[in-house]
Amino acid sequence: MAQDKKQVEQITDMEVDFAQWYTDVCKKAELIDYSSVKGMFILRPYGYAIWENIQHILDTEFKKTGHENVYLPLLIPESLLQKEKDHVEGFAPECAWVTYGGSDQLEERLCIRPTSETLFCAHYQNIIHSWRDLPKLYNQWCSVLRWEKTSRPFLRHREFLWQEGHTMHATAEEAVAETEQMLNVYADFMEHVLAMPVVKGRKTEKEKFSGAEATYCVECMMHDKKALQGGTSHYFGDGFAKAFDIAFTGKDNQLHHPFQTSWGVSTRMIGGIIMTHGDNNGLVLPPKIAPMQIIIIPVAQHKPGVLEACQRVLEQLTVAGLRVKLDSSDQSPGWKFAEYEMKGVPLRLELGPKDMEKGQCVLVRRDSGEKSFVSLEGIEETAAKLLDAVQDGLFARAKRNLEENTYACATLEEVKEKMAVQGGFAKTMWCGDEACELRMKEEAGVSSRCIPFAQEHLGDTCAICGKPAKHMVYWGVAY
Amino acid sequence: MAQDKKQVEQITDMEVDFAQWYTDVCKKAELIDYSSVKGMFILRPYGYAIWENIQHILDTEFKKTGHENVYLPLLIPESLLQKEKDHVEGFAPECAWVTYGGSDQLEERLCIRPTSETLFCAHYQNIIHSWRDLPKLYNQWCSVLRWEKTSRPFLRHREFLWQEGHTMHATAEEAVAETEQMLNVYADFMEHVLAMPVVKGRKTEKEKFSGAEATYCVECMMHDKKALQGGTSHYFGDGFAKAFDIAFTGKDNQLHHPFQTSWGVSTRMIGGIIMTHGDNNGLVLPPKIAPMQIIIIPVAQHKPGVLEACQRVLEQLTVAGLRVKLDSSDQSPGWKFAEYEMKGVPLRLELGPKDMEKGQCVLVRRDSGEKSFVSLEGIEETAAKLLDAVQDGLFARAKRNLEENTYACATLEEVKEKMAVQGGFAKTMWCGDEACELRMKEEAGVSSRCIPFAQEHLGDTCAICGKPAKHMVYWGVAY
Repeated sequence: MAQDKKQVEQITDMEVDFAQWYTDVCKKAELIDYSSVKGMFILRPYGYAIWENIQHILDTEFKKTGHENVYLPLLIPESLLQKEKDHVEGFAPECAWVTYGGSDQLEERLCIRPTSETLFCAHYQNIIHSWRDLPKLYNQWCSVLRWEKTSRPFLRHREFLWQEGHTMHATAEEAVAETEQMLNVYADFMEHVLAMPVVKGRKTEKEKFSGAEATYCVECMMHDKKALQGGTSHYFGDGFAKAFDIAFTGKDNQLHHPFQTSWGVSTRMIGGIIMTHGDNNGLVLPPKIAPMQIIIIPVAQHKPGVLEACQRVLEQLTVAGLRVKLDSSDQSPGWKFAEYEMKGVPLRLELGPKDMEKGQCVLVRRDSGEKSFVSLEGIEETAAKLLDAVQDGLFARAKRNLEENTYACATLEEVKEKMAVQGGFAKTMWCGDEACELRMKEEAGVSSRCIPFAQEHLGDTCAICGKPAKHMVYWGVAY
Repeated sequence: MAQDKKQVEQITDMEVDFAQWYTDVCKKAELIDYSSVKGMFILRPYGYAIWENIQHILDTEFKKTGHENVYLPLLIPESLLQKEKDHVEGFAPECAWVTYGGSDQLEERLCIRPTSETLFCAHYQNIIHSWRDLPKLYNQWCSVLRWEKTSRPFLRHREFLWQEGHTMHATAEEAVAETEQMLNVYADFMEHVLAMPVVKGRKTEKEKFSGAEATYCVECMMHDKKALQGGTSHYFGDGFAKAFDIAFTGKDNQLHHPFQTSWGVSTRMIGGIIMTHGDNNGLVLPPKIAPMQIIIIPVAQHKPGVLEACQRVLEQLTVAGLRVKLDSSDQSPGWKFAEYEMKGVPLRLELGPKDMEKGQCVLVRRDSGEKSFVSLEGIEETAAKLLDAVQDGLFARAKRNLEENTYACATLEEVKEKMAVQGGFAKTMWCGDEACELRMKEEAGVSSRCIPFAQEHLGDTCAICGKPAKHMVYWGVAY
């Protein structure tokens, strides 16, 4: 019966090998499985349920801010992809190409969308004619494909799930405001729902999206002090509109090109959740995104009344709007404890005959392991408060990690030294030249994360070349 | 300003050219647009919103019946697709093939999923080992691609959105019960939500899904009396499980192959809604699926208090849980009436100064054009009741269409005659031989729709060959 008895296996300690710990968590928490195509992963029910929660919350925000969902085709004709020069240069090397339909070779190759700017532009060209047709505030939930050489669960898939917003506006001001608004939607979501503190800023010219005038981003710090780009929001000006011949008659009766944005977040955020909050017992999920917020584990469940009492608590908590499961399988309580710790369920509720006598139960926090004996009366309020405490606790811990590992440096040498010892984000003044960015990459092994909106004056000169400084920049090693 | 003034254009009468009427409605109601790839369509916000409502309601049903959502890759290696002989024969001619990743030719061609049985089997082979791992009740929302020669909005896309359930069970009985359960979920949804009456039955051997042991289906009759297959549910036995080497240790400690099902519905249903309920003024949507259930149109909106009164009604109805929009744009009321008729909004609410004086408003049903003057007091209850009446009215009308155009025939000649005059569904006895099915197709131009679960005894012999009959079959011309 060896095959029959499911075991909760050990995972690698994060201090020993963070990358292996990460992969272990993805597999053992049953978030992901490998597929028959290299670099393409299966999102298992528990992993997909996290994505569904992300979708539900973000989609509500998108609709509140006036956006509508659409669905555009999976395939882009090569000639369409080539219409905007910078864009095609950025994406063509990563395209997967369809060349046959059935047994017929296609006249023109079709690429599986790596992103859909070109498709949206072709559609907008059809449907935008008058100022009455603006703004167009569209969003799409779909998968995209980028044929990358290396892959890691959630962080780098050849195919990944995401949303891509694509909007068109009558004026540049309105489009810039949209770009900023959506970045703020992402930042609020990541901080308040995923409990991941962010640095908001603008990408340098070198790091911006292919074809964009400006790329805004939210940058997060993982537990290993590396950076993860959480989401991006791009302002395109009217470059694509001109390339795709999109024009509208204004109220002034003249023809104008509209101004464009796009913005997206992906399943990559799930990788961020894992690496921000996880520990050596596995995943730790913020309650607001957890598919299961509370797991009820009966103790001595064969004793009379135990399962019935657990069932009553389950109903009480469910009615109160909490996401709760009762595990009454024949696995041992010890096995169950380990299993739901691995899955990062924020609260464990234990209930056995002794607790029943006292009208109480045991609540155990996943984040701190803290145990409390609480009355069954009003358990829904106690549990809800404790879930809030877990949510806040996770954010506070991640915020501390970000703050303690972000430091100012005056010189390239200082960045090299501190980065070697501490990792994290180095902040320096910068002249704005790409040459200095490249030198920082070569010598200190870090890339510019962003030019934060919250600028600080750390000095007058570039830390790399000594010329007059234009911006303060965050540097780090990125996933 | 000709470009500026949006006009509600005329559509072709359905009696003149049903196919053109259908295409006109898809375009003019802004459900769909053509894309840069032949046979691939854009789902515009209004069309996609209908799909979102379908998804929300069905997904809730799937979860109630214990199913979990997952996401499997878009691409299938050719060798994997070939593992089950009948299956690959059915799908290979319609596959789109990826042969290049970036600038590198792939070692093995990858096909864009036309359906995902093979991918699910490869995954199940990894994760099913013990009776404890069963059943697996998975579902996936995604798009699939079938490289067909001809295309029509919603009815036949090269790429379409759907859900595909894929389940594995310890016993054949359980798998058959699942197949039936999901067919019933579809039937209930189509009848009670989409107001489309269905015939439930089993496909003949000739018409069943490639690789299945049995295919169950729900068949609907469109306004032009042609048939539309609404959804299918397949029982696979353990054929795929054997081909993919999926086995589990039973409670008896022996190795067994599990039994499999799959089931799916797609955006095709939206085509069904259009062709079941639409009329010469455009789309007619059943209230339960309509993105907008009530449109409020102010009359003489420049008069003091009109817009404020409309706003109050909007809030009142929205709070009551209805999906309502107020159109206070500067288009004329006449333009607005035509626009929302085209879009099939179930109820129109008109409110002007005279109504305000009397504390009333006008409600107009989209299905019948019936107009009523109702008090603003308790408007949410009146409107909700009227929406129910529209829902019931649409179902009753479609049911009448189905019943009046379904008739028994004793001979092939009779089928030919009646089909030429009336169309619809002919029901006959049948010996079960494919030769008779082929002859019916050749001579009467109809294919077998299904062997209905509700069998009737119309005689003892096959209407085609005169041999002893095994089943009663429905025949028709299908979309």
